[in-house]
Amino acid sequence: LKAEILSIGTEILVGSILNTNSRFLSAKLAENAIDVYRHTSVGDNPERLKTAFKEALERADLVISSGGLGPTEDDVTVRALASFLGRKLVLHRPTYEAIAKKLKVRGRRMNRLITRQCFVPQGSRVLQNDRGTAPAILTRTGTQGQRKWILLLPGPPRELEPLFTQKALPLLLHCLKIKRQAFVIRSVRIAGLVEVEVAPKVKALLKMKPPLTVGIYAKPGEVELKIMSKASGKAGALRGAARLEALIRKKFGSAVYGVDGETLQSAVGKLLKKRGRTIAAAESCTGGRLSSLLTEVPGSSDYFLGGVIAYHNRVKRDLLSVRQDILEKRGAVSEETAKAMAKSVRVKFKADFGVAITGIAGPSGGTQRKPVGLVYTAVAGPKRTRVFHKIHFGARRDIQESAARNALNLLRLELLK
Amino acid sequence: LKAEILSIGTEILVGSILNTNSRFLSAKLAENAIDVYRHTSVGDNPERLKTAFKEALERADLVISSGGLGPTEDDVTVRALASFLGRKLVLHRPTYEAIAKKLKVRGRRMNRLITRQCFVPQGSRVLQNDRGTAPAILTRTGTQGQRKWILLLPGPPRELEPLFTQKALPLLLHCLKIKRQAFVIRSVRIAGLVEVEVAPKVKALLKMKPPLTVGIYAKPGEVELKIMSKASGKAGALRGAARLEALIRKKFGSAVYGVDGETLQSAVGKLLKKRGRTIAAAESCTGGRLSSLLTEVPGSSDYFLGGVIAYHNRVKRDLLSVRQDILEKRGAVSEETAKAMAKSVRVKFKADFGVAITGIAGPSGGTQRKPVGLVYTAVAGPKRTRVFHKIHFGARRDIQESAARNALNLLRLELLK
Repeated sequence: LKAEILSIGTEILVGSILNTNSRFLSAKLAENAIDVYRHTSVGDNPERLKTAFKEALERADLVISSGGLGPTEDDVTVRALASFLGRKLVLHRPTYEAIAKKLKVRGRRMNRLITRQCFVPQGSRVLQNDRGTAPAILTRTGTQGQRKWILLLPGPPRELEPLFTQKALPLLLHCLKIKRQAFVIRSVRIAGLVEVEVAPKVKALLKMKPPLTVGIYAKPGEVELKIMSKASGKAGALRGAARLEALIRKKFGSAVYGVDGETLQSAVGKLLKKRGRTIAAAESCTGGRLSSLLTEVPGSSDYFLGGVIAYHNRVKRDLLSVRQDILEKRGAVSEETAKAMAKSVRVKFKADFGVAITGIAGPSGGTQRKPVGLVYTAVAGPKRTRVFHKIHFGARRDIQESAARNALNLLRLELLK
Repeated sequence: LKAEILSIGTEILVGSILNTNSRFLSAKLAENAIDVYRHTSVGDNPERLKTAFKEALERADLVISSGGLGPTEDDVTVRALASFLGRKLVLHRPTYEAIAKKLKVRGRRMNRLITRQCFVPQGSRVLQNDRGTAPAILTRTGTQGQRKWILLLPGPPRELEPLFTQKALPLLLHCLKIKRQAFVIRSVRIAGLVEVEVAPKVKALLKMKPPLTVGIYAKPGEVELKIMSKASGKAGALRGAARLEALIRKKFGSAVYGVDGETLQSAVGKLLKKRGRTIAAAESCTGGRLSSLLTEVPGSSDYFLGGVIAYHNRVKRDLLSVRQDILEKRGAVSEETAKAMAKSVRVKFKADFGVAITGIAGPSGGTQRKPVGLVYTAVAGPKRTRVFHKIHFGARRDIQESAARNALNLLRLELLK
């Protein structure tokens, strides 16, 4: 089975956007042992698009396109395909109703432009898009002896990715009569260490060959070890992945904070829930980023009570009762201030734990003794208050982000004790 | 002049690496008014590569390839091209010497594999690669009436990017007798409207043809209109862009919040600075995201004093003095609570403006009357307090993000008054 991927959009050809869809789709197809022979990108031009469909279908059995399904006149993918196939465009009732319903909730009505998105080439199968309006469209062509399939997907990655993984791929595998190879990917997530500290410890694992491999990826504030395990059956693939996961956990201990979709904030949330504890945050240089990460987790209201963003020193004094003499003698960016903030927010919010962050996010405000990137983090609990400091690197936003994630990890390790 | 970009490498087709070269080259060519009509990616396979060169050269006057120039047997780009052109491969002495010299510095010697990288199709021009061993190769083909050019570049972006910008592009422009065209890209940013509300108003602009074009892009919480203006001189290109920008500003008035690198948070910051005003935030469902956006801006400490994340109702009552009877009768997600939060945070922080957000981020907690996504935003100023409500869509994080951005925009509009 030969597949090709066709990305549609003039913004790709002028270099305005990076084409991540081709890579995403290629990786997913590779996991299911479908070989991709070519990627093509063309603009939103009906004639060139028709030619691209024609050429791709001459070479391949499956063509997956992304983009050009939007509501405006620029978006010509469906029309170009229908015209190439010599098929009529027909209104797909369920799509029309699904979109109308979504709009109604927002107090908006169907209009002519959005109605365009409900037309599909006759005889297509249609998959609703939960993150947007344009549905995915699967159409068959070719001869009885040599079936060809065309799948049209919307362009925005946040719509395409779940739509493909959850709906289009299972349907495709069914239509193509492909047995899903059992394939387990497991990401083991490590916090508090950087890539060059992790890599030497897993040198042998990184050299393994399929069906069992391990990859290493540096992410903001963490390192991901990605296990890929293939087998003819699910149980075998799971066993392989579990064996490697155990090996990695043994090597890295509590630095492993979770696997797969776990995030530092959800790991912290689980610990707090399990122990029936609550938390409040006091943030200076991170300006709310720590609290915003904590509250991204559904159900965080069970343990996160709230926080104070004490950006101005007056706020540190008035709302968090940090003593004026500490602010003057030690400075707003100091161990003592961090400690006072954490203790105070804990008491003020009647929380079991208080976390505080104070530092210099830059670009200005650094000195020789207190450089840009220096951040103090304090965790105040029922028994004690601990303070940590670290120098973070990068631009202002990088420093804020990594300081917030570092605080989550320190809190996690404190909760583990 | 029509150009195409050909990316070579099996690792692209299996989704192991993201193809950033096509985007980089497209953007550079667009800046020089060279239109790119197609991107193609193929694997390291001599036959498919020959076909790809053949097809691209039938359509385009210039084909730029990246990848497949490495020293190993896998790397077949140069051979495939020579075979397609019917040219001999000849040893390029200066390349051999340059590579031998580089190796010597590292205490290594020339070997058979690396020597492969010194062979080029007869009659090519060769550009040395300062960051690696494989040189760039420029070859001419076609007829006297219709010259065609092929440029081969190494695959690794850190080699390709400087090699193209510093050496290959100037040579190309010289060979193609292209005067370096002036090119201005300007993004006009619109908040508070969605793509389908913006598009109908700029229908005529979206249909314009080069040298002056407008594209429309939906971004989280905003719509971007991208003007591309080409001319023989910088002044002309700037004039074209300015004319269109003025036209767009006239149509959308205060919905236009800025151009190019401006963000909603930086636009709000500029307004606050200009008017010498300060601000504090009270957030419930956004959990600190509004404050975190505001403090991403360098120098935000000039106007952002801080905030309270009043996640738990007790915090709304204790720290923000929201009356218990309002919380009980109207609910935490109500006009009255939003108003009380904004007024209170304004007073508590001694700020000129207070902004408050309260809503239901989901996934649970919604009711028929107050569905998931319902968010109240209040802006309290020296003269009055205004409340707005809106239903946001998507997953929890999408709702938090768009509610925070919507609050920034409401604050901006209030500051403009």
